[in-house]
Amino acid sequence: MADDVLFEFLHMEMVSHIYKDQASRGEMEKDRATCVSTLEGMGFRVGQGLIERFTKDSPSFKDDLDVMKFICKDFWINVFRKQIDNLRTNHQGTYVLQDNKFALLTQFSNGKQYLEEAPKYLAYSCGLVRGALSNLGMDCVVTAEVSLMPSCKFQVVIQKI
Amino acid sequence: MADDVLFEFLHMEMVSHIYKDQASRGEMEKDRATCVSTLEGMGFRVGQGLIERFTKDSPSFKDDLDVMKFICKDFWINVFRKQIDNLRTNHQGTYVLQDNKFALLTQFSNGKQYLEEAPKYLAYSCGLVRGALSNLGMDCVVTAEVSLMPSCKFQVVIQKI
Repeated sequence: MADDVLFEFLHMEMVSHIYKDQASRGEMEKDRATCVSTLEGMGFRVGQGLIERFTKDSPSFKDDLDVMKFICKDFWINVFRKQIDNLRTNHQGTYVLQDNKFALLTQFSNGKQYLEEAPKYLAYSCGLVRGALSNLGMDCVVTAEVSLMPSCKFQVVIQKI
Repeated sequence: MADDVLFEFLHMEMVSHIYKDQASRGEMEKDRATCVSTLEGMGFRVGQGLIERFTKDSPSFKDDLDVMKFICKDFWINVFRKQIDNLRTNHQGTYVLQDNKFALLTQFSNGKQYLEEAPKYLAYSCGLVRGALSNLGMDCVVTAEVSLMPSCKFQVVIQKI
């Protein structure tokens, strides 16, 4: 319990710091994008570190779907204390991971009223996923979408070279 | 295991972000102090939140020493996975908490060679302790000192009004 809270609180503080910091520089519109990308970048590096630990005793993966299943199950449980509830794919490199009760959104009141605040609290996690996949050899674009708190959909699009 | 790493990695990223961010603004000497105080402030707010959770089922405390014992044991175990190894006091409001293997310093090589990097990685934790104590009604100044990694001493000085 304590540890979860430790991570969640630190995450909240970090988001709030990064947004305040930008605001204090007197810039405005481009800020949002910068903050999101700062948080995403931090998540990316943490995701790279985490996946290295999590996979050190795992057998190698058969294919992309196998990797995604690992992310949905082992990775998600380790980081967010639960599995992804639903994984869908178009079998052409796009995956949608749905979490019906996403850990970093549970502090919000349910429903639609704070929807516009959500992206702040998802950027870091998008980075986590992108970093993890990147270290497993998959270059991806990861975005997140909330239509009703605290449920959240992460979309992973593999970049073909 | 995973959770500890999650917190440690996020902490590392945060420290590195805050220092890089300051550096990019082209200021120099006053930077160190600003970074330390930013990190300390983040820790402070997290410490306030944590202690509220940790003490919700605890009986009330007899005196300051009783509070400090709680910090050394329950609080430290919840946050850093071990107890404080040694607690000393002059019975006049100063406490020294010694941790012989402080969680956020274990990634450094032992010994003296990175000593000057240590304050960066202690500021947040000083804030955690100060925030926790503050919510228990004790206004304190908390500083940390390392003479040999990964051992660390936190000094808590209660501010008399």
